[in-house]
Amino acid sequence: MEEVDHLAHERRSSEFDADAMKVVWAGSPRAFDIADRMSRLVAGDPEFRKDNRTMLGRKELFRNTLRKAWHAWKLINELHLTEEEASMLRVFVDEPAYVDLHWGMFVPAIKGQGTDEQQKKWLTLAYKMQIIGCYAQTELGHGSNVQGLETTATFDPKTDEFIIHSPTLTSSKWWPGGLGKISTHAVVFARLITDGKDFGVHGFIVQLRSLDDHSPLPGITVGDIGTKFGNAAYNTMDNGVLQFDHFRIPRDQMLMRLSQVTREGKYIKSDVPWQLVYGTMVYVRQAIVADASKALSRAVCIAVRYSAVRRQFGSQDGDGLETQVIDYKTQQSRLFPLLSSAYAFRFVGEWLKWLYTDVTQRLQAGDFSTLPEVHACTAGLKSLTTSVTADGIEECRKLCGGHGYLCSSGLPELFAVYVPACTYEGDNVVLLLQVARFLMKTVSQLGSGKPTGTAAYIGEAEYLMQCKCNVQKAEDWLNPSIILEVFEARAVRLAVNCAKIISKASSPEEGFAELSADLVEAAVAHCELIILSKFIEKVQQDIEGKGVKEQLQILCNIYALSLLHKHLGDFLATSCINPKQGTLANEQLRALYKQVRPNAVALVDAFNYTDHYLGSVLGRFDGNVYPKLYEEAWKEPLNDLVIPDGFHEYVQPLLKQQLRVSRL
Amino acid sequence: MEEVDHLAHERRSSEFDADAMKVVWAGSPRAFDIADRMSRLVAGDPEFRKDNRTMLGRKELFRNTLRKAWHAWKLINELHLTEEEASMLRVFVDEPAYVDLHWGMFVPAIKGQGTDEQQKKWLTLAYKMQIIGCYAQTELGHGSNVQGLETTATFDPKTDEFIIHSPTLTSSKWWPGGLGKISTHAVVFARLITDGKDFGVHGFIVQLRSLDDHSPLPGITVGDIGTKFGNAAYNTMDNGVLQFDHFRIPRDQMLMRLSQVTREGKYIKSDVPWQLVYGTMVYVRQAIVADASKALSRAVCIAVRYSAVRRQFGSQDGDGLETQVIDYKTQQSRLFPLLSSAYAFRFVGEWLKWLYTDVTQRLQAGDFSTLPEVHACTAGLKSLTTSVTADGIEECRKLCGGHGYLCSSGLPELFAVYVPACTYEGDNVVLLLQVARFLMKTVSQLGSGKPTGTAAYIGEAEYLMQCKCNVQKAEDWLNPSIILEVFEARAVRLAVNCAKIISKASSPEEGFAELSADLVEAAVAHCELIILSKFIEKVQQDIEGKGVKEQLQILCNIYALSLLHKHLGDFLATSCINPKQGTLANEQLRALYKQVRPNAVALVDAFNYTDHYLGSVLGRFDGNVYPKLYEEAWKEPLNDLVIPDGFHEYVQPLLKQQLRVSRL
Repeated sequence: MEEVDHLAHERRSSEFDADAMKVVWAGSPRAFDIADRMSRLVAGDPEFRKDNRTMLGRKELFRNTLRKAWHAWKLINELHLTEEEASMLRVFVDEPAYVDLHWGMFVPAIKGQGTDEQQKKWLTLAYKMQIIGCYAQTELGHGSNVQGLETTATFDPKTDEFIIHSPTLTSSKWWPGGLGKISTHAVVFARLITDGKDFGVHGFIVQLRSLDDHSPLPGITVGDIGTKFGNAAYNTMDNGVLQFDHFRIPRDQMLMRLSQVTREGKYIKSDVPWQLVYGTMVYVRQAIVADASKALSRAVCIAVRYSAVRRQFGSQDGDGLETQVIDYKTQQSRLFPLLSSAYAFRFVGEWLKWLYTDVTQRLQAGDFSTLPEVHACTAGLKSLTTSVTADGIEECRKLCGGHGYLCSSGLPELFAVYVPACTYEGDNVVLLLQVARFLMKTVSQLGSGKPTGTAAYIGEAEYLMQCKCNVQKAEDWLNPSIILEVFEARAVRLAVNCAKIISKASSPEEGFAELSADLVEAAVAHCELIILSKFIEKVQQDIEGKGVKEQLQILCNIYALSLLHKHLGDFLATSCINPKQGTLANEQLRALYKQVRPNAVALVDAFNYTDHYLGSVLGRFDGNVYPKLYEEAWKEPLNDLVIPDGFHEYVQPLLKQQLRVSRL
Repeated sequence: MEEVDHLAHERRSSEFDADAMKVVWAGSPRAFDIADRMSRLVAGDPEFRKDNRTMLGRKELFRNTLRKAWHAWKLINELHLTEEEASMLRVFVDEPAYVDLHWGMFVPAIKGQGTDEQQKKWLTLAYKMQIIGCYAQTELGHGSNVQGLETTATFDPKTDEFIIHSPTLTSSKWWPGGLGKISTHAVVFARLITDGKDFGVHGFIVQLRSLDDHSPLPGITVGDIGTKFGNAAYNTMDNGVLQFDHFRIPRDQMLMRLSQVTREGKYIKSDVPWQLVYGTMVYVRQAIVADASKALSRAVCIAVRYSAVRRQFGSQDGDGLETQVIDYKTQQSRLFPLLSSAYAFRFVGEWLKWLYTDVTQRLQAGDFSTLPEVHACTAGLKSLTTSVTADGIEECRKLCGGHGYLCSSGLPELFAVYVPACTYEGDNVVLLLQVARFLMKTVSQLGSGKPTGTAAYIGEAEYLMQCKCNVQKAEDWLNPSIILEVFEARAVRLAVNCAKIISKASSPEEGFAELSADLVEAAVAHCELIILSKFIEKVQQDIEGKGVKEQLQILCNIYALSLLHKHLGDFLATSCINPKQGTLANEQLRALYKQVRPNAVALVDAFNYTDHYLGSVLGRFDGNVYPKLYEEAWKEPLNDLVIPDGFHEYVQPLLKQQLRVSRL
């Protein structure tokens, strides 16, 4: 078979060292090597094929996922993969499965909240997958508000047991992944009641199913909650419903690291600081931000490649060919900001990894001083990156025209499987309100001490409230210190304006509630500033490889100026810039799009995604889109028969006029 | 069974005559009556059940749709439904099917482009469904650019036939609905070649399948193009691929109303003005805008009702209950602008119906003077309403929290089935560029004659370029003439600014291309002004029913001020308003949200949608959400078996440790 590369001319025209950029994207030569090996391992193994997923019914689909999880487990063991390699392999298998919850939530919950003894007992079983666990927190009537959970765990001193019970329909556990059909155990969150007193929500290890025959234990009602958005997407996962009817567990299955109930039923706080749970939270959120850059970069990779392949309307080159869609400014103005965001999220994710290490060390040293700032920062970054990514994937789908609507484009599935990230681990709007609360507090305490970390700039409020942007010509907008100051000024001014309005309200709480839509905008400004500043920091480091740094500078400027354009109202309303400067920024942005254009395909090649991982005919590395789309069509099950099922009963009678047509 | 209405208190607290509002929404008492009867007819007929759709495999799903189409046809005939009733019935069946293309594209194409003789022959068969047709225009490599189509229709004078041929893979017809498995005929668009000369794209009636046994005719390759976005969504439709291998049709199957090929092979334009095709275009676009208001209002109805049912976090009322989600300002600031947009689109759609009648009369009288304005207006409204609706449905899904991700919420399907509207009948960005082209032309010709219709305001450019908004206090923003003038000023200023920059470019074409992202923004401003002005006109009419007019005024103001907030950058950059006035607008907007809040549920009840049509557990009229969600879950096929298929092969070996764990 002849090898084609319809994108070769694009790759030749790029102006930087593509291999060096791959290492920058991966984070290090070592990270690149692991990702590269694991992605190829998965791509080359027919057991992991994905292209048929959207054609399977729910039962087949679920069985297929169980098979892949088993195959991955075998490979991990046979090849003696390290923990890091194993986790990368699971990433590239790219299919939500019960194992995600086992490794990602059940094990960490026991690690974080179990005593040493509990960890020893349960983690030993969990590591070997002799038990399979999930994380049962949300309920049918309760999501964001954990303190509103209704499930009870009542201590019975007579038997030294907790009685786990679902007192209402709305208290049914609802959504936990892996719960519906597979998990043998769960960490269940319930209101701890002892001696008639409610001590709030705590975690308990609960066995759900028999380890002999897998049937639910007496007192347990459990099942799958039904079909979810998308053809395959999260339907490979058994998100579940769970009800307890006075189900008893031994007292020592309460997770007792932070607090205990004694044999007598006395509730005691341990001397382990409760703030330790924040470590886990930062870890989970940095992982979500890393996922966002992965998902957005996949969508952008597909859209950039296909925009270079696809041609529509009049030729620019006089070669008789239609114009490549990527050459249209309307396409560029939607696509390149997303390309720059993918890079921006990648680098802020890298920084969050560092932040996690920093926080962990501080917590172990008993230093909780940075927690409020870290909490606000990670909450905000989770919210912002997942929202932008979800919208960005759909935008990329639209940028692919009609064919983006086919499952073979990969984009519908990418979207459907991604969007829950906007809701899980904290609804994105609720999280932004937490950021806003932190900002209001920081502003109100400006008299007493300097804010630190990502909030340090608020310490300069006095200057930032009145500073003047002195951009005179378009190129001035390439100066990172000018850009940064403008973004700082916008964020501070929005926050301070909100604080002023709230201070006039009858109560701070009422003022906050009334102004919450504006507060969300102030929080977004704060988060965008963080991402931008980390991008600028990255670009100011030494970066190896011909032209690599230059490309990243271009992307960083696109990130900044496209945000400025998007939120022009913020910048003008707070007088951070004047209308003329806004126009100059837009001019500079157009110039930057021109610069990035010849490098666009190489910049998405740098993600080093295999065709298997992308799962998109439109995003194929070789750009050989149309023959492959055509080939894919014939795999559709509806094409098995020339005359479709139902034709003879429901269509032929029309054509044969067996019906007396009484009107028309 | 006890009847519940968890939303009764919401309905009692509303401040207007709900029945009168239903008539306003429907358009007239007669329209209300037809929609009401047809929706109840469908909802009450078990043959039309929809709730199991997302669980069916593609083949079952397709068969199910054929069955419903047949059942609908029988009903239409048995009940002697009028054409209007029949079309309403199909709306409420609410499932894309081959019949949509037959009635919506095949029949109108023959009506519009066929000679009287051709209409008589083909429409007689089509009306009785003795033939079933589709509309084969787009090709694998060609969508938006109709002039780029590759399929050829070469006249052969020897046999008096056209030879229809697909010269390349990319010329394969691709996407036509109904083509894949069902249509017996198609209107095929192909380049007409006669006497060696290419006369461009023309329409031809082509038989594809045998009327005896439904097998594709020799020379025809036809099939389904595969799975599309969403669980059921458009997978009920057989979008198809079609290739011709020198397939011959008689000369008289060229649609010859506008031009003919003679027996000798001579190409002749007829004396029927080609502008007549614009009539059809306006008709199709007004239908798309009507669909947009329908789709958006469904999503908003679900989100409003569920936001009133759902409670999260602290109580406001001291009754111990958590707060209704609809009382949060963040929820209101996302939900109420969409509610107002649904009404805005409904009224602009109504006006477009009038415009269609007006255009038709003018065309028949040979008056083509309004066509450029009408073309720009309808193109822009199609683009704007479909984009806002697609994004709005997804926003409503997110506003429902995690449960919005379940198919039983109805929102994933509503989204997946709606989004193609952004691409079909003109890609939304391409359409906005057409609007922009019209605007540039109008601005450049301001010296020579006054613009009319929706562009009339551009005639006031001189005044609008320098007028000052004199809003002093928040309530001033309730004055419709102030609002209108500010929106007119914004639209004119954006357009004139673009025109100025283009005039400095080396050529108008290059300037236009370079500036196209800004031009799209100018086009959006023009379209939003049209919608707003039609909403204001509507509200200024006499409207019956207690409080109805007042509610519509509130919605109209929310529509205006939420747009002003969204595009604040436009308004400030063009100095239409100053930052202080922007702040006042936002203040007024918050006050309007308070006013609409007690009426929100009644305002979505006014759509008069049955639970069947909504297809959403979250949007149920009675608000009885949680018990029904729970009930739905158990219908999931995965719950048929306690131990899922695949467990014994792929999970039990893990639990039973039959695998030697070599690490960890």
